[in-house]
This record gives sequence, structure tokens and C-alpha cells, in this order.
Amino acid sequence: MSYTKIAAIYADSEQLGGQTVTVGGWVRTIRDMKTFGFIELNDGSCFKNLQVVMEAGTLANYKDIAAQNVGAALIVTGTVVLTPEAKQPLELKAASIEVEGTSTPDYPLQKKRHSVEFLRTIQHLRPRTNLFSAVFRVRSVAAYAIHQFFQERGFVYVHTPIITASDCEGAGEMFQVTTLDLQNLPKNEDGTVDFSQDFFGKPANLTVSGQLNAENFAMAFGDVYTFGPTFRAENSNTQRHAAEFWMIEPEMAFTDLKGDMDVAEAMIKFVIRQVMAKCPQELAFFNSFVDKGLLERLEHVASSDFGRVTYTEAVEILEKHNDQFDYKVSWGCDLQTEHERYLTEQVYKKPVFVTDYPKEIKAFYMRLNDDGKTVAAADCLVPGIGEIIGGSQREERLDVLEARIKELGMRTEDYWWYCDLRRYGSCKHAGFGLGFERLVMYLTGVSNIRDVLPHPRTVGSADF
Amino acid sequence: MSYTKIAAIYADSEQLGGQTVTVGGWVRTIRDMKTFGFIELNDGSCFKNLQVVMEAGTLANYKDIAAQNVGAALIVTGTVVLTPEAKQPLELKAASIEVEGTSTPDYPLQKKRHSVEFLRTIQHLRPRTNLFSAVFRVRSVAAYAIHQFFQERGFVYVHTPIITASDCEGAGEMFQVTTLDLQNLPKNEDGTVDFSQDFFGKPANLTVSGQLNAENFAMAFGDVYTFGPTFRAENSNTQRHAAEFWMIEPEMAFTDLKGDMDVAEAMIKFVIRQVMAKCPQELAFFNSFVDKGLLERLEHVASSDFGRVTYTEAVEILEKHNDQFDYKVSWGCDLQTEHERYLTEQVYKKPVFVTDYPKEIKAFYMRLNDDGKTVAAADCLVPGIGEIIGGSQREERLDVLEARIKELGMRTEDYWWYCDLRRYGSCKHAGFGLGFERLVMYLTGVSNIRDVLPHPRTVGSADF
Repeated sequence: MSYTKIAAIYADSEQLGGQTVTVGGWVRTIRDMKTFGFIELNDGSCFKNLQVVMEAGTLANYKDIAAQNVGAALIVTGTVVLTPEAKQPLELKAASIEVEGTSTPDYPLQKKRHSVEFLRTIQHLRPRTNLFSAVFRVRSVAAYAIHQFFQERGFVYVHTPIITASDCEGAGEMFQVTTLDLQNLPKNEDGTVDFSQDFFGKPANLTVSGQLNAENFAMAFGDVYTFGPTFRAENSNTQRHAAEFWMIEPEMAFTDLKGDMDVAEAMIKFVIRQVMAKCPQELAFFNSFVDKGLLERLEHVASSDFGRVTYTEAVEILEKHNDQFDYKVSWGCDLQTEHERYLTEQVYKKPVFVTDYPKEIKAFYMRLNDDGKTVAAADCLVPGIGEIIGGSQREERLDVLEARIKELGMRTEDYWWYCDLRRYGSCKHAGFGLGFERLVMYLTGVSNIRDVLPHPRTVGSADF
Repeated sequence: MSYTKIAAIYADSEQLGGQTVTVGGWVRTIRDMKTFGFIELNDGSCFKNLQVVMEAGTLANYKDIAAQNVGAALIVTGTVVLTPEAKQPLELKAASIEVEGTSTPDYPLQKKRHSVEFLRTIQHLRPRTNLFSAVFRVRSVAAYAIHQFFQERGFVYVHTPIITASDCEGAGEMFQVTTLDLQNLPKNEDGTVDFSQDFFGKPANLTVSGQLNAENFAMAFGDVYTFGPTFRAENSNTQRHAAEFWMIEPEMAFTDLKGDMDVAEAMIKFVIRQVMAKCPQELAFFNSFVDKGLLERLEHVASSDFGRVTYTEAVEILEKHNDQFDYKVSWGCDLQTEHERYLTEQVYKKPVFVTDYPKEIKAFYMRLNDDGKTVAAADCLVPGIGEIIGGSQREERLDVLEARIKELGMRTEDYWWYCDLRRYGSCKHAGFGLGFERLVMYLTGVSNIRDVLPHPRTVGSADF
């Protein structure tokens, strides 16, 4: 018992015309004209439905089938009929139809437009809608494209740990992971919690980045990448923040900031081209119903060089337009989303890397430039989103790194293994982090991160 | 500044013979013969080193280079010389060598055999050894092969959530995730912890399986798979258990148990063939130094049909050998690792699916067989490991599922969305879970799960 996928029928229509196939799928719409009828059947193998034509004279159970509700699961055996003069290129003329699973008149996904807010309350059913079918297929194709890009270039995929007991990363608030009974916490004599009784014998958290671990592997394999979930316990209820999201973090030995940007740019273009090649129907749907300029923008980005500008130059450009910003720009300030979007949307009209930020607003591991004021960082800003990639050349000089750690009031002994990488065969190296959901938002035009995650986790919300 | 990878030199040796290239890598060994010397350089792009030949007459800094310690990072420019009569097919005749980063005489990875136990204490350096270089490249190639297998067959990759607030899964002990201050827990009037103040407004855990979520997507896309981290807070300190590990969970609509096993078998064979094709040097290393029978076993598995036997038949076979087991087998008991390994190693001498287990020892969602006693489950057992895959056809009948949930003392309202899948277009469907680390152990012959995870998390241990 193996059914033919609707995607295969469309792909092999030349061969399958006139042939008998069996398809399993779900009813999107059903029209009963008494002696004959039409079913739009979807099996999830592609965006498009298959039109099934059924006739009362052929099907003994015609009345039962015609009375099925939207959402019902059917198994249809019939003949593939090519219809070059019709709207759809082919249809399936049913010889028999079995009901695999019924649906009900109160099935929540009736044929009408639903708000995304409503659909978030039925996350188990929303992948059956056109919008979310398209979003999650693009998400899958983009994820695979990321792997293809790096694997074909010889990068080693590293599963960096999710649970971390080192407090080294210093990027954002963390979730604590514990097996202690919160109703009955073990205590030390001084009244503090006795973490020696916790699963790992000490406090543990969910990772906010795999970068420091990835560096361990880059110093062995040269080129590596991570692709896994990361976490932020930030109480920010915005369209762009989720508590759990997926991140890609390549790390490359013997590579400087320019090489880092080259790889990031090539990666984004590769993913866009793969999605355009594999998901044309999905992108056409987004372009019609979500974001009218999407296709044009993706084509433009895939074929043009990204801009590159230093932070200092960018600030000079932005200062001229300070009257348009809520937060005024001056050298030393962190760029806000409004500034990032102005640069990429108004000034460059394409993705742009901003490089060499003041060291005060960037992480301790970024390489100090010769000016002593800026670090070799590069953020990639894209229209409609703002920052999508944050990267840097890493500080490979042990003395400079240790001085920076101390300067920030951190303890070098907490970073003993990270510093070891600079003791034994240190080399220039660089990497970046790509927020995968932001990439999917960029590829689809969908504006809320809750609508590109299968089951989003945000403040106050962890349903399904 | 872009260096040539050693893998590319070996791959393109015909073209590169006589050409000048620049390589960046790390010293594995160095031999100084006063007027000339040899360096074994490794850049992580492949298992093999590159032999660098250096001459005092050519290099002004010969003495400095010859005095470098193992582990130092060098940038070597030189001519590729083909050496068909020598042990290695080519060498690099150095025209210049720069020291990118020094090492020290106390570098922990001197040229001698280290115990895996010692190497676990320097997880940041162990990928630089032959053993771990081979393990983690095979891990990466196998992970990509998993994606290739499913993507080429039209499966949609779904990132099921890591944090879950539903207590539905019922498989093993869970880690709790919280942002509450454990030193100062908010309390309700009755003295219990006030989880309404926690990040998600209720208690949350780390997932033990993405299956139930994956079913949501299989009912929309037909064929889906997950590949992500899962967690068990079990206090078991064995060679085969980690608290954090990666799992692959395909889920297929309109598929029964036989189809499920067919996909599992094809997937394992595909991964083996990919690893054999892409990692021949790594497998040869394992075959020589880790597990003498490895290559023969992998070739055998890739080319033979897996066995298939019902639990009832398996118990009849095993009962005849009860004198050899610590735990005696009888119908109704759960199979122990000793029984699983006896079946696959002694009886079948290849992987075998055991099907149709008693419902009492399997999960609530597995489809009840017509005998009313067994469920449509299939575990795949492999020599040397035991269970590597656990799968089943899922219960698609709402009334049977609800009865089973109640029978087990669970609450149907906790499974409202899971039951909805059986209300709206239910269909036969099946899936399985593959523990990725067990697969890597199987592919490499490495016997401890701590040695196939980049930074393993186990009871009392979450370092790096």
C-alpha cells in the first residue's frame, strides 16, 4: 500500500496521463452538482491541490462522498486526465473513493480567510492552510539549503550543547534548567539553594549561543557550523522576538572579517536561489497575498552585491537624517532597528554589512582593531527586517583577549578552555550568527515571528 | 587571503602537481634533520595530514620553524610535488613558512596514545586527535545524509519545540525550565510555588520527544521529519545514556507499520552508504583501531534485508536460551538489552525489527492490533548496540485512543489537540524515533556515548 503523491503527478504528468493512480489526501473544497462533483484534494506533498472529478454513475458511494465535510481524509483511485485547455493542467477522474477519516461541519478551517491571530490558537491545524503550508515548506527548504551550502563547501556540522553550566556567553537573559523539586528545594546551611544536589551538580542554563563551543571545533576542523535551537528569556513581546529560536553559527579558522562577510553573503544568496527554484508556487502566493514586492526584492538581492560600510561612515550618513529618528544617532550609540532599516531600505536599498563597531557596544571576543576603539564586527542588515546576521573576527591574541575579559569585570578562569585555544596554535578566525526565523520572515514576507515557528514559545505562551 | 584546503590538494592532485599553493594548518608532528625537515600538517579539511618538506637552504627562518612545538598553527606556501613512489601520494615543498600561532611544550596532545577518559577532560582539544576528528566528521556526514534522505523524498523538516508546557509525552523524567529566582521563589497563599509568575505563566520542561507535534504537521504535509535535541533527566550513568541527545523522528500519513519499517531500513542503509562513500579514511581508522569488524558489518548491513519478527515469535526463540540471560524472558516482559543483542547478534546476525509488542509495555499512542493485546510497534535492533529505532503505527481511531488514555489514568483534555487530529480527517499514519548518537556509535564502533557527542551532558557533568 503505497500512494502516489500529488507532487509526483504534477511532476510526471507526461508519463502519468491516462494512467491509474491512488492518492491519499484531505478535502480542501467539495462541490456537489448532484450527478457529478469536484473535490480539491491536498496531500501536503506540494502547495497545489489536485482536482478530483467524481460521477454518480461511476461511484456507488457517490452520495456519501459528496456529503463529506471539508478536512475529511480520502483515498482516491482514478485516471490522470491531462487538461491542457483548462485552468489546471490535469485532473483525476475517480474510479473509486474511500473515506479514510471523516471531518465535521464545525471543522475550524472552513473556506474563508482566517486571521493569523485566530490561527495561532489552532497551531495543530494551521499547517493545513495555504499560508502556513507555504511558510513551513519554505522553512524546510531553507533549512536544507543551509546544510547544502555548508556541507558542499566542506564545513563540519557540530551539535553544540543546549544545556550549559558555564556562564560565559553573557548574551541576554537565560532560562535555568533544573531537576530540583521547586516545592521542596534542598538548602545549604546558610540558606542558599544546594545546587550540588541538582542534576549537573551545579546551576545550568539553556544556551544563548553555540559560538564559543564552535570555536573549539573550528580550531580542529577549520570550517564548522552549528544549526540548532537557542534561547532568550527576555521579557520582550515584539513581532521579532521568541524565547526559543534556531540559529546557524559558522566558524572559520584562517579567515578574517572580509572572508566572513563573503561567506555570509554567498550563503544568503544560495538560500534565496534554492527557495526560488524549489518553492515557486509558495513564493507566488506570498507575493500576491502577503508582501507584493517580495519576488522582486528576492531577485534583486540574489543578483546584487551587498553594501559594505563602516559603522563610523554609517553614523555620518545617519546623523544627517536625525530629524527622522526617535533615537538620535551619534558615534558610540548602538544602532536601533529604525536606523538599521533606514540604512538598508533608504540608503542602500539592498542588504548592507556595517563593520567596525565601537568595542563598548560589542561582545568581549571580537577582535580589537588597530585604532584601539573599534572591533572587527560585521552586522548584516536587510530591508524589512533590520539585523539578520551578526558576525565578527574573533580576538586570537591571548594577551589582548585576557585584558578585555578583565576590563569587563569577568574572570579569566571561567574562560580557561576558550583561552587555551589562543595558547595552542591560535590563528585568525571569524564567524557569524544567523537567526533562522528572521531569514524565513525575509524569504516569506511574514512579519510576525510567531507565524514562522511551528509552535512558537514567547512570554506567557508555550502551548501545544 | 584564501588558503587551499588539504582535502582539495589530495582531490585535485593531478591539476595541482607543480603548482604553488598556500595552506594554513596545525603541526601534528615535526622532524628536524638540521639541514632539512618534515612537518605533518593538518587543517581539518580531511582526515589525512599533508607532508611539508622544508630546507634550511630555502627558508631563512628554518631554525625558528624547526623549533616549533606540536600544535602550532602555520601558514605554508610551497609547491605541490607528486610522489607516486612514496608512501604518501604527494608532499608540499615549502618556499616560505609563517608562524600564525605558537604552541608550547606542555601542549596536552603530544604524539602518544591518550585514553578517552583523559581526552574527555580536554573536550576543547580532543577534536584535534585522529579518533575524534574521525568521529565528529562521520557525525556531520551522517547528519547531512539524514537530511538528504528525507528531503530527496519530499519530507518536510519540522522544528518541533524544545520547551514544552504540556506534560503529555510521558516518556521519561524531564528537566524543568524556569526563570523564577530559586533563592526567592514566589509563593501562592497555600505555600505552593506561584508558577503564574514564571516565564510561560506555568511550569515548563525540556521535550523528551517531538512526535506528538510532528503528527500535527504530518496531517498537513503527509511526510515530515524532525531532527533536533531531546532530553532525559534520568539518573543513569551508563555508556549509552546522555541527558541531552539528538533524535530524528519521521512521521508519515497514509502509512502503516510495514511502510514505516521500509522507510527506517532504507534510511539506515542510505546513511551507511553515504558515510562509506564520504569517509573511507575515517572508517578504515575505526576498523583498525576501534572495532576490527566494523567495515565488514557495515557492508553486510547495507546490502542485506533486515530481519522482521513479531515479539511473540521473538519471545519463543529467546525462551529456549533463558539459561544464558540474567533476566529470564517470558511473554509480557520488556526485552532487555541482553535479549535484544542476542536476537540481533546471535540469531539474525544483522539488524532485525521486532514488531507487535504487548500494549502494556508500549506508549498510549500506538495502534491497538485486532487481538486486543498487542500494538503495532516496531523496534529496530542492531548488533553491538541493541535498540536503535523505536517506531509504531499510531492509533488513528478517536474512540480507541480516548479509551486508552483513560485506561492509563491520563486526562483526555490534556490531549485535546492530539485528539483533534482524529476528529478532522484522521488517517492511518506511522513514524519512528532514531537516536542519532546510537547511530553514530554504530557507524564508528565507539562504545561510549560520551565520545560521540561534542560536549556530552550526563549526570553530574555539563562542562565546556
